[in-house]
Amino acid sequence: MTAYKAYDAVRRIAVLGCGTIGASWAAYFLARGYDVAAWDPAEGWKQRLQAFVDNAMPQLQAVGTATGAPGRLEMLDTPEAAVTGADFVQENATERAPIKIELYRRIDAALAPDAILATSTSGLILSELVEGIASAPRFVVGHPFNPPHLIPLVEVVSSKVTDAAAAEWAYGFYAHVGKHPIVVKKEVKGHLANRLQAALWREAFNAVVDDLASVEDINAAIAQGPGLRYALMGPHMIFNLTGGKGGIRAALEQFGPPMASWWETMQRTPAFDDELKSRLIAGIEAEMGDRTIEDLENERDTRLVLLLRMLKETEGER
Amino acid sequence: MTAYKAYDAVRRIAVLGCGTIGASWAAYFLARGYDVAAWDPAEGWKQRLQAFVDNAMPQLQAVGTATGAPGRLEMLDTPEAAVTGADFVQENATERAPIKIELYRRIDAALAPDAILATSTSGLILSELVEGIASAPRFVVGHPFNPPHLIPLVEVVSSKVTDAAAAEWAYGFYAHVGKHPIVVKKEVKGHLANRLQAALWREAFNAVVDDLASVEDINAAIAQGPGLRYALMGPHMIFNLTGGKGGIRAALEQFGPPMASWWETMQRTPAFDDELKSRLIAGIEAEMGDRTIEDLENERDTRLVLLLRMLKETEGER
Repeated sequence: MTAYKAYDAVRRIAVLGCGTIGASWAAYFLARGYDVAAWDPAEGWKQRLQAFVDNAMPQLQAVGTATGAPGRLEMLDTPEAAVTGADFVQENATERAPIKIELYRRIDAALAPDAILATSTSGLILSELVEGIASAPRFVVGHPFNPPHLIPLVEVVSSKVTDAAAAEWAYGFYAHVGKHPIVVKKEVKGHLANRLQAALWREAFNAVVDDLASVEDINAAIAQGPGLRYALMGPHMIFNLTGGKGGIRAALEQFGPPMASWWETMQRTPAFDDELKSRLIAGIEAEMGDRTIEDLENERDTRLVLLLRMLKETEGER
Repeated sequence: MTAYKAYDAVRRIAVLGCGTIGASWAAYFLARGYDVAAWDPAEGWKQRLQAFVDNAMPQLQAVGTATGAPGRLEMLDTPEAAVTGADFVQENATERAPIKIELYRRIDAALAPDAILATSTSGLILSELVEGIASAPRFVVGHPFNPPHLIPLVEVVSSKVTDAAAAEWAYGFYAHVGKHPIVVKKEVKGHLANRLQAALWREAFNAVVDDLASVEDINAAIAQGPGLRYALMGPHMIFNLTGGKGGIRAALEQFGPPMASWWETMQRTPAFDDELKSRLIAGIEAEMGDRTIEDLENERDTRLVLLLRMLKETEGER
């Protein structure tokens, strides 16, 4: 880690791409006191970003993320200008390889020689995006979860050419600013957490295909049940507790064989055909009732803030 | 629903099998003011049950489950005695078919003609357990989640011979006592919620096999990320919100194809061999540090109580 900047010396963070994910990152870094240099190619992005930040700031105060005075938000007209002088870049361009490749080419020369860039890509393989980019050894995946200003997880993944020290720096920096980074050791589709989610989604979609339960009941099968535990501990730790006093060893003995027999009946992959789509849409609309997407987002974020506060307040009891 | 007792007339509930699940059910029903007639075949069960109930009661008060004065706990020496005079039976015998079959044969004649029995079985197929049982039309699956006195979900499943009105009665009764029942329309291994969990576990075990991340990081990949959302809404509603303002339709269009491409790389089922077992055990022991299983259970339950309270208190904002 010798070549890179001390965390306390980081002042300015560039946020490239200010859609839902980028705007949320911008709010987070501002709340932590960093100056943010933002850029986005879309019409009207400056107003939307400002509105997002204004809405997120009280949440970040409530959840205890905000530390002292917020940083200064600067909105720039080119990505080159945004990254100039930046110590760290969080890139959130549209999730399409050609768009990211073009952006990397544009900013390559403007990046400071010790600046680290992290891409929020949820599905692309970084090694496939950085050919011919001089700064590529300082590029990593830093994949957050929606909404990034509230959800702590960041997956750090190296490309084939990432400098190990740069990846270590990024991991440490996310921890330094209060996120919960993890290291995904290999480049695979969906990194780690999205693969775990996609596995659950596969069976949730299969349950709709098979008409095993209503869409609303499938939602409740998680949110009123195991989902409550997933907010408190991960799958392997939950498995550990299903073993009673015998812990993980007893769980493996007792639940390994039945689970393997369930898996035998879970080999199908659903097709997103019209039948599945229309059942899903009808089920979701029935469950939403007169609530809008915005209502649901507000409900989620209000509760997330309270959940995160509770988890922080009970941390001492661990 | 004509033939069965009015919910307000239910007074006495038999709890058969008082291990972790049964004891938790007993505490729940007592807190709701029902008299509980308990039975278990194990040595020393009466002390353990009393201790469990004493420990759970303050949690049930904190979470708002307890309503007025608790019911009376009676501990009986035979299952026949326990079910005699019971309006409802929650059966939690050891998860092995011959044991449940024998128990059903023993209690069949002692059950009141309008009593409903629900089995907590997590994996067995009820239709395969009730051959020759006269009361079988009044038997359903009522599968809870650990710990049942805190987690709201109950999966209601009918066997091939279950009277539709009996299943409806059981569903309504769980709702009446404050649980969140769902209807699983077909008898499949693991019902619904355990299949969703097992799907996530499959990829979580594969991640250990592939050394994609440490066991602790795999846990964090859920608990610090999507797990926080699973406590607030189910998988299809989360999918709906990944579509931004375009909702479920936009999500299907935008994330359907990439997810299908991830699934292509998620076709393997892990084997519980010595390598996987020893990595899991080492990873869990490292993450536990000096915490015991009991410490983890207490941490989970303390936080579950606070989480459930928060969800209840923000219900009005839905």
